[in-house]
Amino acid sequence: MITVSLVGGSGYGGGELLRLLLAHPCVDVKQVTSRSHLGEYVYQVHPNLRKQTQLKFSDPVALEPVDILFLAQPHGQAQHHIEEYATLAPKIIDLSADFRLRDAAFYEQWYGEKHAVPEWLSRFVYGLPELRRDELKTASYVSGVGCNATASNLALLPLVKADLLDTSAPIFIEIKVGSSEGGAEGNSGSMHAERANVIRTFSAFGHRHTAEVIQEMGVKDVSLTMTAVDLVRGVLATAHAKVKSDVATKDLWKAYRAVANENPFVRVVKEQRGIYRVPEPKILAGTNYADLGFELDESNGHIVSMCAIDNLMKGASGSAVQCMNLMIGWEETTGLEFMGLHPI
Amino acid sequence: MITVSLVGGSGYGGGELLRLLLAHPCVDVKQVTSRSHLGEYVYQVHPNLRKQTQLKFSDPVALEPVDILFLAQPHGQAQHHIEEYATLAPKIIDLSADFRLRDAAFYEQWYGEKHAVPEWLSRFVYGLPELRRDELKTASYVSGVGCNATASNLALLPLVKADLLDTSAPIFIEIKVGSSEGGAEGNSGSMHAERANVIRTFSAFGHRHTAEVIQEMGVKDVSLTMTAVDLVRGVLATAHAKVKSDVATKDLWKAYRAVANENPFVRVVKEQRGIYRVPEPKILAGTNYADLGFELDESNGHIVSMCAIDNLMKGASGSAVQCMNLMIGWEETTGLEFMGLHPI
Amino acid sequence: MITVSLVGGSGYGGGELLRLLLAHPCVDVKQVTSRSHLGEYVYQVHPNLRKQTQLKFSDPVALEPVDILFLAQPHGQAQHHIEEYATLAPKIIDLSADFRLRDAAFYEQWYGEKHAVPEWLSRFVYGLPELRRDELKTASYVSGVGCNATASNLALLPLVKADLLDTSAPIFIEIKVGSSEGGAEGNSGSMHAERANVIRTFSAFGHRHTAEVIQEMGVKDVSLTMTAVDLVRGVLATAHAKVKSDVATKDLWKAYRAVANENPFVRVVKEQRGIYRVPEPKILAGTNYADLGFELDESNGHIVSMCAIDNLMKGASGSAVQCMNLMIGWEETTGLEFMGLHPI
Amino acid sequence: MITVSLVGGSGYGGGELLRLLLAHPCVDVKQVTSRSHLGEYVYQVHPNLRKQTQLKFSDPVALEPVDILFLAQPHGQAQHHIEEYATLAPKIIDLSADFRLRDAAFYEQWYGEKHAVPEWLSRFVYGLPELRRDELKTASYVSGVGCNATASNLALLPLVKADLLDTSAPIFIEIKVGSSEGGAEGNSGSMHAERANVIRTFSAFGHRHTAEVIQEMGVKDVSLTMTAVDLVRGVLATAHAKVKSDVATKDLWKAYRAVANENPFVRVVKEQRGIYRVPEPKILAGTNYADLGFELDESNGHIVSMCAIDNLMKGASGSAVQCMNLMIGWEETTGLEFMGLHPI
Repeated sequence: MITVSLVGGSGYGGGELLRLLLAHPCVDVKQVTSRSHLGEYVYQVHPNLRKQTQLKFSDPVALEPVDILFLAQPHGQAQHHIEEYATLAPKIIDLSADFRLRDAAFYEQWYGEKHAVPEWLSRFVYGLPELRRDELKTASYVSGVGCNATASNLALLPLVKADLLDTSAPIFIEIKVGSSEGGAEGNSGSMHAERANVIRTFSAFGHRHTAEVIQEMGVKDVSLTMTAVDLVRGVLATAHAKVKSDVATKDLWKAYRAVANENPFVRVVKEQRGIYRVPEPKILAGTNYADLGFELDESNGHIVSMCAIDNLMKGASGSAVQCMNLMIGWEETTGLEFMGLHPI
Repeated sequence: MITVSLVGGSGYGGGELLRLLLAHPCVDVKQVTSRSHLGEYVYQVHPNLRKQTQLKFSDPVALEPVDILFLAQPHGQAQHHIEEYATLAPKIIDLSADFRLRDAAFYEQWYGEKHAVPEWLSRFVYGLPELRRDELKTASYVSGVGCNATASNLALLPLVKADLLDTSAPIFIEIKVGSSEGGAEGNSGSMHAERANVIRTFSAFGHRHTAEVIQEMGVKDVSLTMTAVDLVRGVLATAHAKVKSDVATKDLWKAYRAVANENPFVRVVKEQRGIYRVPEPKILAGTNYADLGFELDESNGHIVSMCAIDNLMKGASGSAVQCMNLMIGWEETTGLEFMGLHPI
Repeated sequence: MITVSLVGGSGYGGGELLRLLLAHPCVDVKQVTSRSHLGEYVYQVHPNLRKQTQLKFSDPVALEPVDILFLAQPHGQAQHHIEEYATLAPKIIDLSADFRLRDAAFYEQWYGEKHAVPEWLSRFVYGLPELRRDELKTASYVSGVGCNATASNLALLPLVKADLLDTSAPIFIEIKVGSSEGGAEGNSGSMHAERANVIRTFSAFGHRHTAEVIQEMGVKDVSLTMTAVDLVRGVLATAHAKVKSDVATKDLWKAYRAVANENPFVRVVKEQRGIYRVPEPKILAGTNYADLGFELDESNGHIVSMCAIDNLMKGASGSAVQCMNLMIGWEETTGLEFMGLHPI
Repeated sequence: MITVSLVGGSGYGGGELLRLLLAHPCVDVKQVTSRSHLGEYVYQVHPNLRKQTQLKFSDPVALEPVDILFLAQPHGQAQHHIEEYATLAPKIIDLSADFRLRDAAFYEQWYGEKHAVPEWLSRFVYGLPELRRDELKTASYVSGVGCNATASNLALLPLVKADLLDTSAPIFIEIKVGSSEGGAEGNSGSMHAERANVIRTFSAFGHRHTAEVIQEMGVKDVSLTMTAVDLVRGVLATAHAKVKSDVATKDLWKAYRAVANENPFVRVVKEQRGIYRVPEPKILAGTNYADLGFELDESNGHIVSMCAIDNLMKGASGSAVQCMNLMIGWEETTGLEFMGLHPI
């Protein structure tokens, strides 16, 4: 058993992380902080936790030392307190965007401001086990992942890893997302009457998660186009790219299966019959799976590679717990066994 | 470890049961039958089970002996084969409606046909632990529960148990349900374009589940009115009744809390602040919880008692697994620990 | 052609009214006011009006005289300015709750505050043509209607008009509503991630619209129970009552058909086959229809009477335009001919 | 007034067309055929038409001569009866895919079978007024349009018309669609429980509507990728292409505005504030609008061009009525004035 605390537990990512930590067989949750909900029972904000815990939100200034400190604050906060947090715990997992990029100039380019503690960037490992498993096993500081970046990175991973991409062609990634991605705060466009029934392409290019794709996949000419659809949880990335001239469907099967075999939470979904023939976030709610699929137009090398995830799980809190398991040396899947629901 | 098999595993209730049995730490699933999907991998029908099991649907004629046999066939089939099934397993849990009622004449009244094996009705125990826990512990044959009956029975349970109802007044139970209740077969009205965005009161009275409420709660003048709404999983029963003349809100608190204290999967939800102040099926997807709440109009004794459940869990497969745990003597909550998701 | 202006045009009711007025063949819209959106094109707030009008939101202090002034402000504002508005137009139609009740003490009982201009209450006619057609033809001042009250009143109308109700029994009206009823402002519970997939019984009794049912139907023991479901537009009221002892289904058919025959926007929906057998708000989006249906349990006199409407149309702006048509002497249905969409 | 009849009126496209024809001020609907619903009132299938018409579905063999015959049958039927239909009416508008392509070999390539009456292909005009207005004014035979093709063609139209595209780059069009596109028949994947909450990329390339884009836009390297989302009505096409090297945002504004100015049902939606900044099908339900928008990455010439439509209106029946207006010489917008709803 280890002790953990969570800084910033009232948002959707924090709530999901708390659920996972409470259910984890080897973890004891000491404190969960929230300034805006100070003193409230956590189940009053996260109603699924009723009868599961009597924890109340505490003040971040009263944090006590633990084995692992999780940070789930809005972007831009963790970097201002990281020195302080580091005195409280030998290991830190930060779900925010503060420590995802390794290069300070690259950070400034995408986030439009100088990083507060650039010297800390190199101390963090990017928190996606499918990309950084070995480094994570010995890491002290682990960053979170962008949910859209994760769906994009995993859609590209088999192609990059097997070196099948024609890198002279641009990569267009069309990403469709549910409303939980907008966070618990939201805005006027998040109201149900305005947000229900939408197909709303809210970002054509320039989404900040693009930086994580460039960094982790080593691709250059890549764009993420974001479309909001009527769903609460889930992301589907549909990546359009070009494969090298001699790549055939059988090569792709080999590359995708290899990634699935090496990673307990990756599955290949490519069926000829039935209702569920392709990756779909619908059946992934609450799971840590990343489902991959592809179609190749052999006439011109156009590949459509798909990755479906639950944005709050594999795209945030699930990956964070998976990282923790690796950092401590537990079975990688511990506490992440939920299979998902059908139908839902 | 015990061995179990499942007869009729391609429907929604069967799929959910299979998910729970595969995840159960003390259960080994031997066979799952389906005539229409014979030979297919179960994950081709229940896509959430991909990478969880390599089981294929087998032929019911090839069933082998097990410790517990689960039946999840359409209504009217189990009663014609129960003698045969009983030779295969010492314990049977049947999710269908075939053995829920104890009286053959009452069965005929509500189902419009004679029961095939009336002598078997008394051998079964009604499979809702909140009502029949002690009997279940020694039962060999356990029936399923109707999902709408379950929400209704649990909405009434605190009132009946504490003897607070004015039984001279009729009880109206308004039940709102998601589409998974219609089953995997469906009809033309189940098509998304026709079923999305509905508020469709499809049964004003006479729903068969009413019989289970009459039998289990001992009430007479009760009606269930069914309305379909746009949701996949979930039932909310809103019961309108009258309490005895001297009953006050504090008496109700006492009665509801008593039921919650005696039952690990019952919670009282009655908050003055926050978003989730009342029982809601939204946050119960995949859980075995029954959330209860109430409001009393002290001026006239009108009580509104609410119960929210996941129709496929507490209203079907979750309760069945809970019964199994009781029948074998395991911890009642084993394999049913999933907390549910927020948001979803 | 007459001239009209609209005070408070940025909300959902105001936007819907504006759409109807712009499309009305005999109406010229002069001004639409909004303090919060002053100077913006109305189509920036109501995107369906793009390319339909170049009107901008103007300041309420700059209102000019017109033939009819429409008020669509939040509750509690119109009563403080009615004297002033009356100098601008000989006819006023107020969509708010300020002038729906005729009795000042009754208003205070339900709204918890004294009415600012009680002497004005008797000058207004309740704006539901199905109840007050003759009075509306000569009215100068017309109130709006509560959407839930409208669904309730029309569900009860055939029974009350034909004197079929057993008035010694209480009436329970279960109302299911979409999210647009919450208005354009909303709250944290209106966010899509929290409001999608709900079945949320947010008011067991005491909803203010109850007062309009008591006043207009002359019933006493009536309660409205409100449940939010996942839909943007629409209300279904399912009323549970008791009919007199000798009332049979044929008497009900006669009573319901009579109301449908007298009212161009009332239809009876009671089919034995097909998908749409009962009243459903799904197919009423954008229409001014009120669809009625019923089921009688002849064994005990329990009647379930249903009324489906679009809350923003028949439950607000559509009825207001219908009132205008009557006040001016135009064909009652002018500008309200939209049939609704199937599927939607 | 002219007389029209409709062959095949029980599907979604046929129902929508019937609604428009019944509401059209200059059209008298004589007959509507349906073999499967023979003798039923049309409002029993299309419940929005209740109290609007007493028409019953008649037998196609009993068709009488009219001024315009509309065909709304499943694909592959019209071509086998066109000679016969031509004896009944001097003008025919066929909504199916049978006569959309001008070249018999091209038809065979995309539909996988020889055309039954290739000599008729050249007699038809492609029924999208934004592309073929002048030809439609004198046409006797007009084809329907594919809904996905329409959204794609209109997304590309400003670019093609102003010759801004770098034709050496491939065009990827990502199309998100609602469930009504699947038609009233559907399949097991159309059931609400399976179809709700989906983001399902069901066709990566090779969709038949691609042929209409190639034919009408004169582009060669174009692919349509289809993703089903949780919505009943609506299509959003998000086209990724490359503009010529010197094209700037101002050139695009000019090109898009020109198309909007020439076409009454085209609007440009590109706002810097408010909730509705981009084209969205949500607010187009029931309207004949095509809303266009774009974003240009000036650093690399990547353009994202968007077009939102209602698939049953501009993508099918609305365009058909617009064609009729042009063929007869009426005002192009007659009977298509519905503005759409907000919120919905």
